[in-house]
Amino acid sequence: MSSTLLSRRDLRFLLHDWLDVTRLTERPRYAEHSRETFDAVLDLAERVATERFAPHNRAADRTEPTVDGGRVRIIPQVGEALDAFAQTGLLAAAMDESIGGMQLPHVVQAACFAWFQAANVGTSAYPFLTLGNANLLLAHGSPEQVDTWVRPMVEGRFFGTMCLSEPQAGSSLADVTTRAEPQDDGTHRLYGTKMWISGGDHELAENIVHLVLARIPGGPPGVKGISLFIVPKVLLDGDGALGARNDVVLVGLNHKLGYRGTTNTLLNFGEGVHRPGGRPGAVGYLVGEPHQGLAQMFHMMNEARIGVGAGATALGYTGYLKSLAYARQRPQGRPVADKDPTAPQVPIIAHADVRRMLLAQKSYVEGALALILYCGRLLDEERTAPDPADRQRAHLLLDMLTPIAKSWPSQWCLAANDLAIQVHGGYGYTRDYDVEQHWRDNRLNAIHEGTHGIQALDLLGRKVTMAGGAGLSLLVDTIRATVTRAWKAEGEAAELAGALGAALDRVALVTRRVWSTGDPQVALANASVYLEAVGHVVVAWMWLEQLLAVEAAGTADEDFLAGKRQASRYFFRYELPRTGPQFDLLESLDRTTLDTRDTWF
Amino acid sequence: MSSTLLSRRDLRFLLHDWLDVTRLTERPRYAEHSRETFDAVLDLAERVATERFAPHNRAADRTEPTVDGGRVRIIPQVGEALDAFAQTGLLAAAMDESIGGMQLPHVVQAACFAWFQAANVGTSAYPFLTLGNANLLLAHGSPEQVDTWVRPMVEGRFFGTMCLSEPQAGSSLADVTTRAEPQDDGTHRLYGTKMWISGGDHELAENIVHLVLARIPGGPPGVKGISLFIVPKVLLDGDGALGARNDVVLVGLNHKLGYRGTTNTLLNFGEGVHRPGGRPGAVGYLVGEPHQGLAQMFHMMNEARIGVGAGATALGYTGYLKSLAYARQRPQGRPVADKDPTAPQVPIIAHADVRRMLLAQKSYVEGALALILYCGRLLDEERTAPDPADRQRAHLLLDMLTPIAKSWPSQWCLAANDLAIQVHGGYGYTRDYDVEQHWRDNRLNAIHEGTHGIQALDLLGRKVTMAGGAGLSLLVDTIRATVTRAWKAEGEAAELAGALGAALDRVALVTRRVWSTGDPQVALANASVYLEAVGHVVVAWMWLEQLLAVEAAGTADEDFLAGKRQASRYFFRYELPRTGPQFDLLESLDRTTLDTRDTWF
Repeated sequence: MSSTLLSRRDLRFLLHDWLDVTRLTERPRYAEHSRETFDAVLDLAERVATERFAPHNRAADRTEPTVDGGRVRIIPQVGEALDAFAQTGLLAAAMDESIGGMQLPHVVQAACFAWFQAANVGTSAYPFLTLGNANLLLAHGSPEQVDTWVRPMVEGRFFGTMCLSEPQAGSSLADVTTRAEPQDDGTHRLYGTKMWISGGDHELAENIVHLVLARIPGGPPGVKGISLFIVPKVLLDGDGALGARNDVVLVGLNHKLGYRGTTNTLLNFGEGVHRPGGRPGAVGYLVGEPHQGLAQMFHMMNEARIGVGAGATALGYTGYLKSLAYARQRPQGRPVADKDPTAPQVPIIAHADVRRMLLAQKSYVEGALALILYCGRLLDEERTAPDPADRQRAHLLLDMLTPIAKSWPSQWCLAANDLAIQVHGGYGYTRDYDVEQHWRDNRLNAIHEGTHGIQALDLLGRKVTMAGGAGLSLLVDTIRATVTRAWKAEGEAAELAGALGAALDRVALVTRRVWSTGDPQVALANASVYLEAVGHVVVAWMWLEQLLAVEAAGTADEDFLAGKRQASRYFFRYELPRTGPQFDLLESLDRTTLDTRDTWF
Repeated sequence: MSSTLLSRRDLRFLLHDWLDVTRLTERPRYAEHSRETFDAVLDLAERVATERFAPHNRAADRTEPTVDGGRVRIIPQVGEALDAFAQTGLLAAAMDESIGGMQLPHVVQAACFAWFQAANVGTSAYPFLTLGNANLLLAHGSPEQVDTWVRPMVEGRFFGTMCLSEPQAGSSLADVTTRAEPQDDGTHRLYGTKMWISGGDHELAENIVHLVLARIPGGPPGVKGISLFIVPKVLLDGDGALGARNDVVLVGLNHKLGYRGTTNTLLNFGEGVHRPGGRPGAVGYLVGEPHQGLAQMFHMMNEARIGVGAGATALGYTGYLKSLAYARQRPQGRPVADKDPTAPQVPIIAHADVRRMLLAQKSYVEGALALILYCGRLLDEERTAPDPADRQRAHLLLDMLTPIAKSWPSQWCLAANDLAIQVHGGYGYTRDYDVEQHWRDNRLNAIHEGTHGIQALDLLGRKVTMAGGAGLSLLVDTIRATVTRAWKAEGEAAELAGALGAALDRVALVTRRVWSTGDPQVALANASVYLEAVGHVVVAWMWLEQLLAVEAAGTADEDFLAGKRQASRYFFRYELPRTGPQFDLLESLDRTTLDTRDTWF
C-alpha cells in the first residue's frame, strides 16, 4: 500500500525529472553523493517518520504537555521518536562533514524533513527548531560556541529554541525590552519575559539552548539596539559537563488549537531559580557583535519561514492523500445521469464535485511542494554554484520567494486540509480521522514566524523595493524564462504560458503602480492582496515548470504524468484567474481600508 | 459595554430601517404585536443568551458529553440553560396561540435565536432541533400526534431529533434501509441503525421524540419508498404518562472537532432493551401517509438548512465582534509612515491590514445576517401575505435562496472566524480566547443538513430548473428590482447597481449556458462553483439593499451608517469581483473534473 504521508513517486519526479538534483553531485561539496545515497536517506526518512513519528501523532494531540511540579510532562512516544531521529543523523544532513554532517544538498534535506512534518508536525518541531538554532550559531557563533553548543545539538543531546517575542512585542520586535547587562567576566545577565517559545521547556534533551534577543543598556532604540545571546537552560562547567540550572524559569504552557505536541511556553529570564537570594539574572553569551541581533536572527528566520511553508505543505499533502484514499473506498450515491436506486452505490471519487476537491488539493499541495523544493534547490545554488554571480542571483531570488514560500502553503494547504475534511463528510468532522487535526495544526502556520500580514509587508514593502527593484526584476525574468521555454514547447504548455505571461505582466505593472504615489500607506494598503496574487502567479509558474518536466519525462507511467497534466490544467483554469480581480483592485490604488475610521466598526 | 455576541444596533437597522417588520403587525396574525413586543422578546433573548448560554460555552467544549453505564453525562450548566430557555417560551415564538405560541413573525424569531447561537451553538442545538421536529409534526402530524408529542415539546419537557442518516446512507438518502414493520394495532416496529443523530440521547428532557425515516416492506425502492415515523425514547401509557423504555439503544457518541456540547450519537432501533428476550423492535407511529417521508422531512430540512446558515452567521458575527474588541485594545507596532521606535505603539486596528480583516468579517457576517433575516421575512410573507400570489412568490423565492442561505454563511462566516483568529495573532491560536472554538464549531456547517456539494446540486440541478425556470426568473427579477431602485437613487448606490446588474446578467446567461447541452453531467460538473458565484451575487444584493436603507435612514448615528456604507463598498470592491473568473469557468463548460480519471490521482 502506498504511503498516506507523502508520495515517493512525486518526490522522484520533482527531485529528478524536474530539479535534476543528481547533477549537484558534480560539485565538490556533494562529490561523495549519488542518486543512490539520496534515495537511501529518503528511504530512511520515510521509514523513521512512518514507524516512529506517525503512530503517536494523535496521542500527542490528545494528551498535550502538562506541568507537574515545575517539570513538563510529555507522552513517552515523543522522546522515543526523537531518539530515533537523533540516530538517523539527519539533523546534520546538510551540515559540513567537519562537524559531523552528511553534506547533503539542502533540497534533499528538505524532502527528507517533509516526511517527518507530514507524519507528526508537533514532534518534528523539536529537531527543526534545534536545526535553525544550530545553523544560526554555525553562521554567527565563535568556533568555541560552535564546539560548546552546536556539537551536542548535532548529537541529539541538546535542543534549541529561538526567543524573540515578549508580551508587548510580537510582530513588533522593535519593542523587545529584555535587558542584557554586561558582566566583568565577559558574559551578560538577562532579565525579561519571552513568550510563545516553542520547545521552551521539556526533559527531552539534556539541555536547551535558547537564542534570545535582548538589549544591552545604552544601545540605540528599536531594532538597531537588539543583540543576540546564547542562554542555556543548564549552565556548563569548565569542562563542558552539565552544571547548575541557569536562571530561566518556566512560567507556564500555552494551550493551543493545534500543534499540541510541541510545548509552547512563557519563560522568565532572570527570576526565581536562586530565590530567595534575589535575582541573579540568566547567564547569557553574546553571539557576534552587539546590536546585530536582528540581522543574525533573520538568518534563522528565513530558514524558519521556509520551514513553516514546508510544514504547511506536508500537512496539506498528507491530508490530500488520506482524503484520496477515503474517496476511493467510500461508496455513496450514484452518477447524476443514472439514479437507479437499485444499482450499487459508487465510490465517491466518481462524483465530479469530489474530484474537484481532490484536484484542488492536488494542485495546492504538489504546487507548494514544488515551491519548497525549488527554494531548497536555490539554497544549494546560493551555497555551491561555481559562478559567484549565480550564487548572488540565487540569494536574491530566494529572498524574494521566502515570504511566498512561507505564506502561500500556509493559506492554500490549509484550504487543502479544509477540503480533506469536506471529502470525508461527517466522518471528517470526527476525531476518529486524522484530517481535522491536520487542519488545526496547519492553522498555526499563517501566524508564527511572522504573520500573513507581516509577510505581505516584507514582500511589497521590502523585497520588491530592495536593491532598486533588482529582486523583483530577477523574479519576473526567471518566470519569463519558463514562459519562453513553454512557448517554444508548443501544445498545451504554450497555451498555459500565454496565461502566465499575461499575469506576469500584471505583476510588473501593478508593482510600479502601487508604488507610483510614493506614499507607503497607499502602496501597502493592500499588501496582503498583493502577496496572495503574486503567490498564485508563482505557484502557476511551478505548475508550468512541472508540465514542462512532464513533457520531457516521456510516456512511461502514464497515469502519474496525466495526473500532473490535469493538476496543472486545474491550477490554470480554476486558480490563476483568481488573480485578475486582485490585480484590478491593486491597480485602482484602492483606499477602502485606509479610509475606514475606527469608529465605523 | 456593548455585547460581543451580536449587535442590537445592527438588528435594529435590519429589522426596522430595512425590513420594516413593524408593518407586519397590520396583518391579523400579528395584530397583538407591536415594535415594543418585538423589542421585548429581543431583550429577553439577549439576556438569557448572555447570562445562561454564553458562560458555559467553553466549558461544554472542554468537557464534552460522555457515556457512563449507558447514560449520557453532560455538564449541568447545559440543563440549567435549557430550563431557562424553556421558561422564555421562545420555542413557540412563531407558533399559533392555540398551541401555546406567541405568534411572532419568523423574522423576529430568527433574530432572537441568533443570540443563542452566537452565545453557545452547542447548547442551542437542543431546542432548535426540537423546534424543527415540532414544526414538522404541526405540518404533517395528526391532531392527536400534535397533542401527544408537540405540546410537551413546547413546554420544554420533551426534546426532538431527526434521524435520517445511516452508516451506508449519508448524502444518499435513497439508500436508507431501516425497516418499519406494520403491526396489528396500527403501529410499526422499526429495525435499523441511524447515525450522526444530534441530541440522540441525553437526560436533559423527560423524553426524546425521534423522527425517523424508514421503509415499510413492499414499498418502492429509493427515496419514493421512505416513510416517516415518530419513535419516542420512552413510550407513553394510555393516559400520556411516561411508561417503558422503547427499543432505541445508544450505541455510542461521536467525538467531534467542534460543536462538542451537542451529543451526536449512533442509535440502534430495535435492539437490546428487552434482551435476552429477542428484538421486539422500536415502536413507531407513522406520520401522514406511507412513502411520503422524504417530502415531509424536507419541510423540516428547509427550515433546518436556513437554521444552519443562521448558526454559521451567529458564530461569524460573535467572532467578528470579539476580534474587533481585541483590535481596539491590543497595542502593537506603529504606522507604516512613522516607525519611530520611541513613540508609543498603536492599537492594531490602526493597521490597514487589520482593518481589511475587520471589514472583510463585517461584510461577511452582516451580509449573511441580512440574508438570514430576509429569508425569515420571506417565510412570514409565504405564511401571511394577504395576496395568495405574493405567498406563492415568497415560497418560490425562499426555495431558491435556501441552498444559498445554508451554504454561503457556512463558507464565508467560517472565513470570518479564520480572520478573527488571525486578528488575534498568537493569542487567537490559544484556547484562552473564544475565536478558535468558533472556527471549529463553524466547520460543521458546510457538512450537516446536506453538504456544500449537495446544496450545489440542489440549486443548479433542481431549483433553477424547477417550474420551467420560474424560480430563477423570480430571483433575477427580484434582484433586478433592487438594481433599478438603486439606479434611480443615483450616487454611490447607482454605481454599485451597475456592478450588480452586470453580475446578474451573467447569472442568467451562465445558467442557460451550463444547461445548453442537455447533459446533466456537464451542467453539474461545476455546480459548487455556480453555488459560490450566485451566493456572492445574492450577498452583494443584500449589501445594495442595506446601502439603500442607509440612504433612507438619514443622517442620525453617522458612524454606524458610515460603517454600513464602507462594508458595502468593501463587498463590491473586494468580493463581488471574485465571481468574474467563476462565471468565465462556468461559461466555458469546463470539463476538467469530468475528464479526470481516478487512476490519475
